[in-house]
Amino acid sequence: MARQDKAQAILGLGAVAMRDRLASGALRAVDLVEACLARIAELEPQVGAWAWLDGDHALEQARRLDHLRQSGKPVGPLHGLPVGLKDIIDTKGIPTENGTPIDAGRVPSEDAWIVARLRAAGAIILGKTVTTECAFMHPGKTRNPHNSAHTPGGSSQGSAAAVAAGMVPFSVGTQTGGSVIRPASFCGIVGLKSTFGLIPRTGILPQSPFLDTVGVFARSVEDCALLAEVLAGHDPADTASAPMPMPRLLSVAQSNAPVLPVFAFAKLPGWDQADPQMIAATEDLVDLLGEQCFEVALPDLEDVAAIRERINFAEMAKCYYGLERRGRDLMSGKLKSAIDQGKSVLARDYIAALDWRELVNAGMDAVFARCDVLLCPAALGPAPEGLDDTGSALFNGIWTLSGMPAVTLPVFTAQNGMPMGIQLIAKRGDDARLLRTARWLAAYLENLDEEN
Amino acid sequence: MARQDKAQAILGLGAVAMRDRLASGALRAVDLVEACLARIAELEPQVGAWAWLDGDHALEQARRLDHLRQSGKPVGPLHGLPVGLKDIIDTKGIPTENGTPIDAGRVPSEDAWIVARLRAAGAIILGKTVTTECAFMHPGKTRNPHNSAHTPGGSSQGSAAAVAAGMVPFSVGTQTGGSVIRPASFCGIVGLKSTFGLIPRTGILPQSPFLDTVGVFARSVEDCALLAEVLAGHDPADTASAPMPMPRLLSVAQSNAPVLPVFAFAKLPGWDQADPQMIAATEDLVDLLGEQCFEVALPDLEDVAAIRERINFAEMAKCYYGLERRGRDLMSGKLKSAIDQGKSVLARDYIAALDWRELVNAGMDAVFARCDVLLCPAALGPAPEGLDDTGSALFNGIWTLSGMPAVTLPVFTAQNGMPMGIQLIAKRGDDARLLRTARWLAAYLENLDEEN
Repeated sequence: MARQDKAQAILGLGAVAMRDRLASGALRAVDLVEACLARIAELEPQVGAWAWLDGDHALEQARRLDHLRQSGKPVGPLHGLPVGLKDIIDTKGIPTENGTPIDAGRVPSEDAWIVARLRAAGAIILGKTVTTECAFMHPGKTRNPHNSAHTPGGSSQGSAAAVAAGMVPFSVGTQTGGSVIRPASFCGIVGLKSTFGLIPRTGILPQSPFLDTVGVFARSVEDCALLAEVLAGHDPADTASAPMPMPRLLSVAQSNAPVLPVFAFAKLPGWDQADPQMIAATEDLVDLLGEQCFEVALPDLEDVAAIRERINFAEMAKCYYGLERRGRDLMSGKLKSAIDQGKSVLARDYIAALDWRELVNAGMDAVFARCDVLLCPAALGPAPEGLDDTGSALFNGIWTLSGMPAVTLPVFTAQNGMPMGIQLIAKRGDDARLLRTARWLAAYLENLDEEN
Repeated sequence: MARQDKAQAILGLGAVAMRDRLASGALRAVDLVEACLARIAELEPQVGAWAWLDGDHALEQARRLDHLRQSGKPVGPLHGLPVGLKDIIDTKGIPTENGTPIDAGRVPSEDAWIVARLRAAGAIILGKTVTTECAFMHPGKTRNPHNSAHTPGGSSQGSAAAVAAGMVPFSVGTQTGGSVIRPASFCGIVGLKSTFGLIPRTGILPQSPFLDTVGVFARSVEDCALLAEVLAGHDPADTASAPMPMPRLLSVAQSNAPVLPVFAFAKLPGWDQADPQMIAATEDLVDLLGEQCFEVALPDLEDVAAIRERINFAEMAKCYYGLERRGRDLMSGKLKSAIDQGKSVLARDYIAALDWRELVNAGMDAVFARCDVLLCPAALGPAPEGLDDTGSALFNGIWTLSGMPAVTLPVFTAQNGMPMGIQLIAKRGDDARLLRTARWLAAYLENLDEEN
């Protein structure tokens, strides 16, 4: 097999399959990293997914991990698997520039909690992926791998594009509005935004502590589960983190539900603004699911987008105070405007806004009592043309505010060939069940395609 | 023994001793409640500790509990013990008026979490004790049992005065600034403000959710431990509550420390404003403790009083929004002014203020690494003369903000005969160790008195 074909074959595997071959000795971490680097060399000029990448550093980790495995010592659950990290996640000794020239040249002296966890699990830090400016709206250099004229979405744009381009099997991002689910949908991959508090955020640029949530990208549901399970845990330094039993995300995601899953379908506020192709595709899916899916009327969520934004901007005004003092002139107009809006929010309005988290959860209890997951579009439509605007988070912000876990599956295609995702939402803490249901749906639709 | 002597003898017992006699059959709950009611009948006209009291209702509970014990069924840890509850703590079917005419005639349809807990433990709800207006500064009718011309302190004024007057063995209050420790000090009894989050607050009037803390009053440290242990627990409906192991407060408080406890003494911000008698008494105690006590310089806490007030007022502006709409005209000038100040607090200043909780704890870590507890006065001095002003919380607010547990012991007496308390502070979560150390100190000083 020619070198290029071999690389192609390796990259065609999912992360779980890679893990199994690494374990059996059928694959070396060095070969895997070389395949990733070859793909990056080929596609990075047009995709622009990476903020920092050092092939030698990655190969050195791979060699050390291959050597360690050969020694027969016990290894971690991600041993030898490369991962991409959004460039707001601190990496010791590796630049972490938060997507802003204000932090150009910034090199953290400590790993973020999840990075320490990844290293302990044997993962290879392949590189840092492009983030929008400070994980807000002003775009970085990344383009959509499906069409360079289109945005990859934001803010975790490099993490989504790198996985979609096959440069790395999985990657880590964060969501404060819709920054995991939206780019995953635009780039045609699977994205998981975990339950708020499940994955600690210590060492990740805080933008909005009551909203910031870690998520993962991969090409399959089980690959997302593999990565997210390693990231989940308790860190007392993160006030959102609680000492809870660790969910067995991968084994539950790989298991079959005892009965067929039940879906609820809801028209979220903003439904009328969605692309007719997205509406039609979603309604077709609902029809297809037949008796397994029922439509629900949601509690009144009209105000939630504004409520979420109020929390986001007020916390941003506080969290980015130091950044602003160091370099307001280097900030985009969008970021400055959001910070300025945040500065004028009154404490009592902010405190009242926080109550909506529990209100939305309480309002949704009746829905989740009757279904496994809620279905809704992952975004308004396919990735818009142009790179200046990363698209709307209208269908995502509610679930970030409520802290509910969300998955997007790349199951629709627009007429222009761009992918579109369907979003699945579950009760807080039900990440494992959500992944199991998402895997069922993905397999169900795949089988239908094969039959046709 | 005449009826009155018998009542006197019963009320002279502490709660733990009452519990033991109730268990052995040497004392009936009915006799205990009758003794309490007799004392109340005698002293209530001059003390004014009770907002609601129904002797028949209390006796009915006592009879039922005596009957239940005679049946041989297992009983709870407070079986047959009467307790007083600050009138901001919801009691099902019993008026809870929050110290404001706006809530006159209000009768909750549910018990607060701690009230349900008390009932399950076999406690008798003797009555509701006077609170200042909405647990803020405007005083209720209560007078200091040691001298009716003096304030009993606030805001848990009825709970403190009822215990000090011997009307009830123990009672429950709350502290948002200094509302447990200050009235306990002014009334000459023991008060415990527990670690923030240890005792759930569901069903208690929320004034400032990041500060509101439940505390207890009794005439001894072990009686406080007995009551607080029953109240501690986890309630998912209270965001401050965490699923932690239950501390064994009473057995630890009753045990002897393996080595002599070590005290740190600190001059808090505002030391110069303290009454010279309080300063002298505290310094004498420090001298007396000799090598068991060392003086420490605290981290810079000058701003903490203003920071605490900012959080308090901002949250009050939000929490009392409904009350204000229903009856701003019925509010005192002090309350309206605090709410108005709270309305103008900006979200980013409020969010930044919240960071001080962890900053104060981190700054105190080095102190607590070297001692069991910190010593400081419980108040600026003895209870001031007059009833309009409930006194200053200057030496209490820091520990409410930081969430650290605090105890006051009634070990000093001013020249006018009014009691003064010494305050002991411990690390968050160290309530049991704090109580054990407080009991040691109380016993140590009692032995000295007996020797003299």
